[in-house]
Order: sequence, then C-alpha cells, then structure tokens
Amino acid sequence: SLVVNHTDHSLVFADLSPEEYRAVRDYMWEQRDLNISRDASTKASGNFIFLIDLRLPKKVDALHYLDTKGPKPSREATVVVFFGSLGYLKEYVVGPIAGPNMRHRDVTFEKYNVKMLPVTARPVTIGEYVQVFTFLHYEVFLELEQILKESFDYTQGKKTLHIFEGMPRGVKSGDRQTWISFFRDYSGMYIHPVGFEVLIDHGSTNSSRWAIKKLLYNGQYFDSVHEFKTMYGLGKVKKITYKDTANYASLKPRTKPTGLAPYQFYPQGKRFSVRNSQVIYLDWCFSFGLSSLTGMRVFDIRFKGERIAYELSVQEAMSVYGSVTPGMIMTKFLDSSIGIGRFAHELVRGVDCPNVATYIDTYRYIDTNVTQRFRNSICVFEHDVGRPLRRHFADFFHNSFGGMPNSALVFRTITAIGNYDYVWDFIFYQSGSVEAKVHATGYISSSFKIDGSLKYGHQVAENTIGNIHTHFINFKVDLDILGVKNVFQTKDMRYEEVFLPWMPERKAKVPQLVEQQLKTEKQAAMRYGMKTPRYFHVSSNQTNRWGHQRSYRLQVVTFAGDHLPESEPEERSMSWARYKLAITKYKDEEQTSSSLFSQNDIWNPAVDFSKFIEDNERIENEDLVAWVTTGFLHIPHAEDIPNTVTVGNGGGVILRPHNYFDEDPSISSPDGVYIQPG
Amino acid sequence: SLVVNHTDHSLVFADLSPEEYRAVRDYMWEQRDLNISRDASTKASGNFIFLIDLRLPKKVDALHYLDTKGPKPSREATVVVFFGSLGYLKEYVVGPIAGPNMRHRDVTFEKYNVKMLPVTARPVTIGEYVQVFTFLHYEVFLELEQILKESFDYTQGKKTLHIFEGMPRGVKSGDRQTWISFFRDYSGMYIHPVGFEVLIDHGSTNSSRWAIKKLLYNGQYFDSVHEFKTMYGLGKVKKITYKDTANYASLKPRTKPTGLAPYQFYPQGKRFSVRNSQVIYLDWCFSFGLSSLTGMRVFDIRFKGERIAYELSVQEAMSVYGSVTPGMIMTKFLDSSIGIGRFAHELVRGVDCPNVATYIDTYRYIDTNVTQRFRNSICVFEHDVGRPLRRHFADFFHNSFGGMPNSALVFRTITAIGNYDYVWDFIFYQSGSVEAKVHATGYISSSFKIDGSLKYGHQVAENTIGNIHTHFINFKVDLDILGVKNVFQTKDMRYEEVFLPWMPERKAKVPQLVEQQLKTEKQAAMRYGMKTPRYFHVSSNQTNRWGHQRSYRLQVVTFAGDHLPESEPEERSMSWARYKLAITKYKDEEQTSSSLFSQNDIWNPAVDFSKFIEDNERIENEDLVAWVTTGFLHIPHAEDIPNTVTVGNGGGVILRPHNYFDEDPSISSPDGVYIQPG
Ligand SMILES: [Ca+2]
Ligand SMILES: [Ca+2]
Ligand SMILES: [Ca+2]
Ligand SMILES: [Ca+2]
Ligand SMILES: [Cu+2]
Ligand SMILES: [Cu+2]
Repeated sequence: SLVVNHTDHSLVFADLSPEEYRAVRDYMWEQRDLNISRDASTKASGNFIFLIDLRLPKKVDALHYLDTKGPKPSREATVVVFFGSLGYLKEYVVGPIAGPNMRHRDVTFEKYNVKMLPVTARPVTIGEYVQVFTFLHYEVFLELEQILKESFDYTQGKKTLHIFEGMPRGVKSGDRQTWISFFRDYSGMYIHPVGFEVLIDHGSTNSSRWAIKKLLYNGQYFDSVHEFKTMYGLGKVKKITYKDTANYASLKPRTKPTGLAPYQFYPQGKRFSVRNSQVIYLDWCFSFGLSSLTGMRVFDIRFKGERIAYELSVQEAMSVYGSVTPGMIMTKFLDSSIGIGRFAHELVRGVDCPNVATYIDTYRYIDTNVTQRFRNSICVFEHDVGRPLRRHFADFFHNSFGGMPNSALVFRTITAIGNYDYVWDFIFYQSGSVEAKVHATGYISSSFKIDGSLKYGHQVAENTIGNIHTHFINFKVDLDILGVKNVFQTKDMRYEEVFLPWMPERKAKVPQLVEQQLKTEKQAAMRYGMKTPRYFHVSSNQTNRWGHQRSYRLQVVTFAGDHLPESEPEERSMSWARYKLAITKYKDEEQTSSSLFSQNDIWNPAVDFSKFIEDNERIENEDLVAWVTTGFLHIPHAEDIPNTVTVGNGGGVILRPHNYFDEDPSISSPDGVYIQPG
Repeated sequence: SLVVNHTDHSLVFADLSPEEYRAVRDYMWEQRDLNISRDASTKASGNFIFLIDLRLPKKVDALHYLDTKGPKPSREATVVVFFGSLGYLKEYVVGPIAGPNMRHRDVTFEKYNVKMLPVTARPVTIGEYVQVFTFLHYEVFLELEQILKESFDYTQGKKTLHIFEGMPRGVKSGDRQTWISFFRDYSGMYIHPVGFEVLIDHGSTNSSRWAIKKLLYNGQYFDSVHEFKTMYGLGKVKKITYKDTANYASLKPRTKPTGLAPYQFYPQGKRFSVRNSQVIYLDWCFSFGLSSLTGMRVFDIRFKGERIAYELSVQEAMSVYGSVTPGMIMTKFLDSSIGIGRFAHELVRGVDCPNVATYIDTYRYIDTNVTQRFRNSICVFEHDVGRPLRRHFADFFHNSFGGMPNSALVFRTITAIGNYDYVWDFIFYQSGSVEAKVHATGYISSSFKIDGSLKYGHQVAENTIGNIHTHFINFKVDLDILGVKNVFQTKDMRYEEVFLPWMPERKAKVPQLVEQQLKTEKQAAMRYGMKTPRYFHVSSNQTNRWGHQRSYRLQVVTFAGDHLPESEPEERSMSWARYKLAITKYKDEEQTSSSLFSQNDIWNPAVDFSKFIEDNERIENEDLVAWVTTGFLHIPHAEDIPNTVTVGNGGGVILRPHNYFDEDPSISSPDGVYIQPG
C-alpha cells in the first residue's frame, strides 16, 4: 500500500477552517464601534461582513518557515465589511486567529491607496437582491401585470419571470444602475429571454429612493412604467405574443441512460494521498486552497522534493459581450467580483470527475452570516490521458520498444457562476510538467431577437440570440526555479543566411536559435496581437549538467478574441487581458490581478494590473511572477443549446521543464515499459 | 449486446488485400517489356516495383455508388516502378484488379506533367542501402579502421557505427549526394553522434561510380579519405578520443514497473464495431485505410447517417533543421517520401493504446517483393476524456444538475519513421465534432558538438547537440456539408463604436460579428504569420432551423515555427506549409499535397501544393477541400533525452458543427445524467 510522508507545513496555505471563520466573525461582531449586523440578508443600508477569507502569509515568512525552520506564520483573515450606514466599504486584516490576541487592522489604504472604498463598488448582496426583488414586484410586476400576462403568460405567484443582470451597472464611477433582462421561468432560463428589460437605479443604500429609469419592450424604449403602460394601452407598442414552447434548455436526457461508457479504475488502489490540504502523488507534492473570490489555487509545488512554483492560481474570468439590447450591449463580467471559488459546488461522480476520485469538502464565508460547507467541491484523481507519454519503436539496427502510458494527477473544481460553468484543472504529469487548463460549459447568455440583433450573434433558439462574447482567463504563475532569484528568457527561431562550410560558393537560410534575457517588466509584457517570441522561460542562473540555465517554459494555449480597446473607460479593470503573458517582480501587495470591487466600480478599479508593470522594475535575479491570459472568442451557434460543450472551448498554460533536469525524469517512472525481442 | 448494421460500401476505400497486392505484383512481373526484377533488394541499376497501393476511385464514381446506387467502382492500384536500367521512374494504374481484364496504364504524364520522373527523384530502396553499406564498408570503414578505432572504439564486426542521413541529397535537381553522419552502436543511436560525417555521391545507378566527396571530423573538413588519413597521420587533426559512456538513450525503466497506473475498461462491452474497413460508434460511421505513403485516412464520415466529410487524411510530416554541421545544416525531412503509413508498426497494449482497444492488422507492399502484414497496427477504442462533455449546475431559481462525461472514439496509428514517432489520432465526439491530432515522441535528431553548434540548439548529452527544428504537419479535410456544393466562410469579431440607444450622448465600443464569404482560392489561402479571421467554416447554402447556413468550423490548434522562406529552392516541395489553412476546389488529380518524389527531387517537386491555388479558381458552391497545417517549433532540451514527451508537443484541427444542427446532438446521448433534488 501507499507510503507517503505528509507534512503539516501545507497548513499555512490552507483555507480557514469552520472554527477559524467563526472566531473571526464573532470577533468582528463583538466590535461595538463597527456596529455590524448579524442578519444574513442585511439590507443595503446596514453594515455587513461580506467576506471572510484566508489572508495569505507574507512570502518571506512562509519561505522562512518552510525552508529554514523559521516560526510558523500566524493565521490571519481578510475581512470585507460593507458599511451601508456610512456609505463606504473597508477591508480588515484580523489575526492571529487562534487565541485571545486577535486584533483587527484596517488595510483599505495600504491595499487600495484610498481610506475607504465607495459603497457603489460593492457586489450586490443577497440582502440587496431581496430588496431588488421586492422593488421589481411592486414597480414592475404589479404595475404591469396585465401586459406581462398578455405578452409572457406571466401569472403572479405561478408563472413568474426571472432576472439576469447586465454589468457594469452604469457608465461611470458612482453609478449603480442595472439593466435587468427578464427570462422565462424554466430550468436553463438563460436562453429563454422574453424581450423585456428594465433599467433600475439602485445607487442609494436607501431602497425607497430606487427608481426605474428606462424600459425596453420588443426593441422599443420607454422612459417610465407609466409611459409604457400608456403607450401599450394606446396600441402604440408592437406587441410580443406569448407562445408556449417546449423547454429547449432542459438538460433532461432524451435517451434512456445505459451506463455503458468507459470507466476508469485503479487496479491496485490510489497512488496519491490527500491530507492537511496537501496532495502527494508519485514525485509531486503541493498544498491547495480555494479562495471564495479567485477560486482554486495551489502552493509550494514540489517535484522530487524541489520547489518549482510557490503559487499557481486562478485570478479572473472575464467576458465582454456584444448586443443591440441594453441588457448586454455594455456587459463585461468580471467573475472574481462575484466570486469564482464561491460557486465551486458539489461535483457529480462519474460526470464531473471519475467515480474513483477523492472528493474534498471546502468551507466558505461569503455573503452570509454563517460558515458554509460545500461537500465534495474539489476532486483529485489520477487519469490515463489515453495517449503514451513517450514511446519509441525501433527496427533499424536495434529492435526494441520503450515507452509509458501518460498517467497524470488532476486537481479540479467546477464553478457555476450563474449561466456559465468553468471546469478548472491543474494537471501534474510524470515528466515534470504542470498544466493549468480551463474549459467552459453551461448556458450561454442570450438576448431577445429584435431589429439589428444579428450583428451581434446568431439566432440559436426561438426569438433568441446567442450574443458574441470573449472569454479571458487570468492565471498567476509564481514559479520559483531553484529559489526566488530568477530571470525571464525568451527563445525562438530565426532563419539566417549562411555559407555552406564545404561549398563556400553556396548560401542557404538555416534556422538558428535566438535567446534573449529581458531586463524590465515593460520589456516582458507580451501583448496579444503583437508578434512575440514563441518560448517563454523563467530561469535560474544555475545550470544543468550540460551548462544550460535551468528553466521552466510557459506554453500558453489560447484562442482569445480581441481585448477591449484601452480607450474604453472600463478597460483598466481588466488590463491584465492585454497580455498573453506578463512578468512582474513579486510583491506581497500584488496578490491578485483583479479584485472584489472591479466589477462594480469598473471605471476606477481597486486593482489595475497594468500598474504592476508601469513602474517598470528590473526583473533580473528577482522573484518573478508570470501572469498568463488565455481564452477564446465565442460566437454562439445552435449547438450551444442547451449547453456549450467543452470540446474546443478552452485554454491554458503548460509549465514544462526545459533544461531544468539533465534528462526526462519520467525515465524513472514505475509505469515504464520495455520490450526486447525474445 | 451491440446491434450495428455494417455495409460493405466502405470496401471501396479499403486498402488492397494481400490477394490484391499479389495479383497486381504478378501482373506487373509478367509484363515482359517492363523487365522488372523479382529481387527484394534489387540494386539501383535494376528495375523494381517500389510501391503498390490502393488507387482511390474518382470521387464522382464513389458518390454515385454510395448515394445513388451506381455501379461499384472497380478496384485499382497505383504502381510505382523504378527503371534503374533506363534511368527513370514511372507510375502506373493497374486494374480492374479482380478477373482477367487487368491492364496497366502509364499515368506519369497525367499525374506529374512529365513523361518520366528522373531516377534521382526516387527514395533510397533497401537494395540501394545494401549497396551504400557495402560502399561505406570498403571506402570508409576498411580505409579508416585505425582512426575509427582510436576515435570511436570502432571494431569491425563487433562495435560498429550506424548511419543517419541528411536530406535533401544535394543542392539542386539531379543531385544525389548524401551527408551521412555516424552514430554509436547503441539503442537510441540518434542521440549518440560521434563527430564524423561523410558526403557520398550515389547519383549514378552504377555503384562503382559512387564516391566520397567530403569528410568532416571533429569540425574539420577533408576532400578525400586519403587527405584525411594523411593529415591525421601528420598530427594535423584535432583528435576525438573515445570515452565510454553509459547509454543515456536507453529506454529501459530505472524503476521496477509496478502496474499501478489507472486503467480504463468497458463496463458492459464495446460500444463500437469494426468490420469491412468500417467503424460504427454510436451515431458515427466511417471507412478507413492506411496509405503506405501518407498514412492514416478515413472516408465517408457520417454522423446520424449524414455525411460530414468525404475524406480526412494525413498528408505530410515535414521538419526543417538547423545545424552548423553538414549532416543537418540543410536537412528538411518530408516523411511521406519515405513513407508515413509504411512505418505504422504494431501497437503496444497498455502503452500505445488501452488494453481494451480493438487492434487491426494492415497489409502493405512497399520496397519489397512480397506483401507484408503489420499486426495490430491500427487501434480503435472508446476513451473517457476525463472531463465532462457538458454540464450545468443550477441553484438559482431552479435547482438541478445536467451533464454527461466526455466519452469519445479514438482511431489511432503510431508511425516510427527513423528516430521520430508520431501519434496520429482521429477522435469522434458525441457532440458531432471530429478532431485530428498529432503528437511527437521518440528520439530527437542530434549532432556532435563543435565550434558554433550552440547557435543551433542546446547541448542535451555528452558532446551532443539537440538541433533546433520545426514540425509541420498537413491534413486534408474534404468536408462535404449536405452534399459537395459548399462555400467557405470566415467569422470573427470587431469592436464597433455605437451610440447607446437609451443614452444617445454616450458611445461605446461593442463587439460585433463579422462574417465573410470568400470567393476564390487565393482569398481563402490563410497564410501563417498573417492576421487571419479566427473562425473558418465550410458551409452549405442550406440553413438550419434558425435560418443560419449549416456549417462545420475548422479550429486549428498549432504552435508552428517559421516556414522556410519562399526564396529557398527547396520551399516549393513544402509550399503547403505556408498556410495555416487553404481551401481548394476539389480535383481527383489533386489527391495529395506532397508526393513520394518530393524529398529526393525537392528542387523540382512532382507536387507543388501552391499550384493548387495558383489558378485561383472560384470556390463558391463548389466541392471544397481544406488543407490544414499544424505543428510546433522544437528547441530540444535536456528533457528530450532519452525521448521527447507528448505533453505540449502536438497540434491538430477540430471539426466542429456550427449551426449544422438545430441544437447540440449530445442531448440525445445515452450517457446523459440529470439530477433533481428529491
Ligand atoms: Ca512592478
Ligand atoms: Ca517567483
Ligand atoms: Ca485550384
Ligand atoms: Ca468537399
Ligand atoms: Cu461563451
Ligand atoms: Cu522535434
């Protein structure tokens, strides 16, 4: 059976435990001066702990602990409080969590360079949604009951309409005006738009000041509910007539499931082990966690005992939509502001992950008043990729076969953020490579077909446009190659004309190796749309046996569309997407490329990634972090109904050893096969 | 158990049977006037049947037979004869194969526009290799025995040196001068260069006229064996001293195999069936074959009974190398001239394909005098990709889960062409997509390290340079979307500045869908290095339920390096590699993008793909063929020793339905799963 030596070192990266969440929450609740509500659905006007999440230790402290037996960094939490009563937001660090010395410290200024964040920068809480639904009930559903019945067969309490919000909520900082589109009350509502949208101003924390600012019905705009009603009554509105349709969004199988699909099993048990937020698999060892905001992350990735990377993490998932309708015309989703890890739900055995996977529970505290357990929300499994990792058959001179199957460890979460589901994989190969991969599935966003719609997408169902959009995903890759002092190198080919040495009258163009070491952050910012070198390397100055700098290469796999032009005021919140890859000098303060507040104050972002490189620091023999952007252009088509399939709809980055070792480490794998003729 | 209805229609695409090969061979042998030798290793001066391979039926005849109950096209063979005694090559069609009416017809002119091909355009046969070895034995090994002993511990009959040839064989049409590099007598010799290379002129079919033209020893050139010997004796040569090293190229596992890796099985038997060169898998049906030259191919690909593609096939695998040494400085391999399918050897269960795969024998007649059976050289299996094909979890408004695992059918061969092994996959997904994928593994080519070597690659082992090179792979994709009359469309996004309809003073840049239908072959030639639209479609003018043209999209996955500049005289033999994707009007005469003769008369190629598009035919409502080039730049590194791993070293193309259906066909899969809360 499997013999592994777990350490508890990994616990410095572990998510907060239920006990820790509770201790932090109770501590904050007890601070009389903060005057925090204990209600799970605190109204916009109240004070509310929106988020408690692990505060990562400073890297220098963590390394001191891990590598040189320094003290264990104390456990700390990040706590985000919405002060609705005061009209601002604050972020605190609370810690050390264990024991009686817990303290809180306002870090808003040191983190965001402002004393407080504007209240309009906050995500919409469940408490605010309750208010939105109430508002809609009175201002829209009751007021327009007759029209909605006629148009959409709306029946109060029986056949309702559901909402989908456009984002950002306005056109400038301070705005909190949301276009809400209505959808039929079906499973998979996202592809059942009815053709009715309203613009609601919920900028005030006092919901009695909220207002409907505009309405759109079947392509026609109205300034008020009253105007719409009047015009409709006068017959001056082109009516939508309700037509019953089968639910084409249903995911119910149309064929009886037979259970015949191939099935993977471990002939002699698992070859990996999970304990203390640590995974050990053959030569691999890493720690893991799940941030409510940014999602899945792993730390202290080691291969054969040597640290390859300090951190590999999801940072952001962003989409920019096109539409003729207001609900989507401006829409730019920044999922980490809603919470990526937040929506890592239970994984379904045999579909989301193999039956034989190890499933791990996670605990979160976000937009609630109690720690929530998410059962089986991470899975870990070994998978036969179905293609040899390497092989060679020889029948010239020597006759033999050597090779091995490609069995790799997959670490996975799946996050269903509203309509879309992202499948997040970190894959650990026996050749020393790590792959970060993301695939999209779930429902597309859609809009009701009106004049001009087809400029923005194809019709994919009855009256339904699948709107064109981009997917951009950002990963943080903090490689540490033989310590933190690294350089960034590029490699590529170039045809050089040379004389043939044995035939000096003859020239030929011959591929040469072109290597460069880049000196500054700006040089190393590899923009999309520019010709960049083909190979990117984070390298040590230490060399392998053959005298070459030991390095890991970052191979980006991407099908990205065009990034939003920088002239747009929303762009700075997503400025990481300018770069296929960017290299920055490590800073504890530059923990994430996006932020909780980017979505709702998109024009004045709390974190603007481009500033990480604007100071153009030197990156030679420094601790380097690579920020990788992948993605794909999505032009929805009929086959996105009911759900987008993962085939072809993904991207990622492969971290590959490149002169890091003296030879391929898989040569020592227990999976190797060698055949010689009798 | 599985109920399938195979047809024998597929047999029109089936490889020749052993009986058919024999009938054709015997017929040709019996033609007195052709005067063909029956010796398996006929010398260069003799007349020799190099190749017998299936001659594909004309497409119009095949479709008449398949679709409208026309007569079955007769079986025909392509026969390539090397007339060494006459100094030229010819290609014949022989058929109909069954019965007494067999005839042969010289098709050299109709195929290549010349009455005969120059004898120097032929690949080196086993017969010629026997002569090369004899020549080397007398002219090099015996002459230089003492030096070779001192330098490389060469011992006649005991410790020999093996050869690796540079290609092309010269610098202009008519040349047949090959730089031969010597390697140690180890398994995996390809990464054991000794630093000794000779240029041999074997242009004459009379081997007594062959000559050594140059020698290279430890970076120093000599005009003759005599000069080398003399200089060496005078101490004017910088000597290489033999050093015994362990065989770092060995593929023998260093760890005891444990058999613990995950394993895939079919819980209730196979869901696919193979008969009559036809595969049926769920909604898929296709015919298959394996050309000795171009390799794996499938025909008449149908999904739910409807033909998607007439042909999907491997065309060529090409590499351009860089080196300071002559053995590789000019090297450009065109594998189909050596034979890709020719080297599809037996697949190893549990490594190359799963144990539970179906293995198929193939039969070939190439460079021999007898039909050869290649046992288990194709495998077919269903594979759980390990990631859901689609899934959505909902907890807003409706609470449910729907999804399915991604089980797909893999059709595979692996070809070991000298040092390199390519893994070729055609993958059939339940969502209606087909993927053509190739991965590289096996040994890199290498050269002995001398001054200036490091411009062309890294050192990867003792004295060994892994030379920089490109991999370019060409696929033929003859999609037929609802018949043969199709158009070629591109789709992409563009930011357009628009006024917000409800706020006319405000502008925003919004993604719009940009669609184009291209009219001519030149317009549709999508060059590498140029900005091209992101989506490529072969479309019917028929529309789906939502009014959109039914199409398949070609998504190219590539990491290609730079193509050889067109100014180089060798470029026209590989002109297909200029284009990521090119569309041509279908012609029976444009069967392949490369040819058997491209490698050895590279300067005057029998097939120059760029000519397929030079006539710039219209491509609207025509039978269209897409030629897709994928590949990757390979800068070898220490981890390529002993073998390149497949992770990250591949490319391909995904054929995806795009408005072809009215919704995702996988919704009808028996693998669908749906969960609703109790
Ligand atoms: Ca910086
Ligand atoms: Ca680092
Ligand atoms: Ca043409
Ligand atoms: Ca076609
Ligand atoms: Cu999408
Ligand atoms: Cu290669």
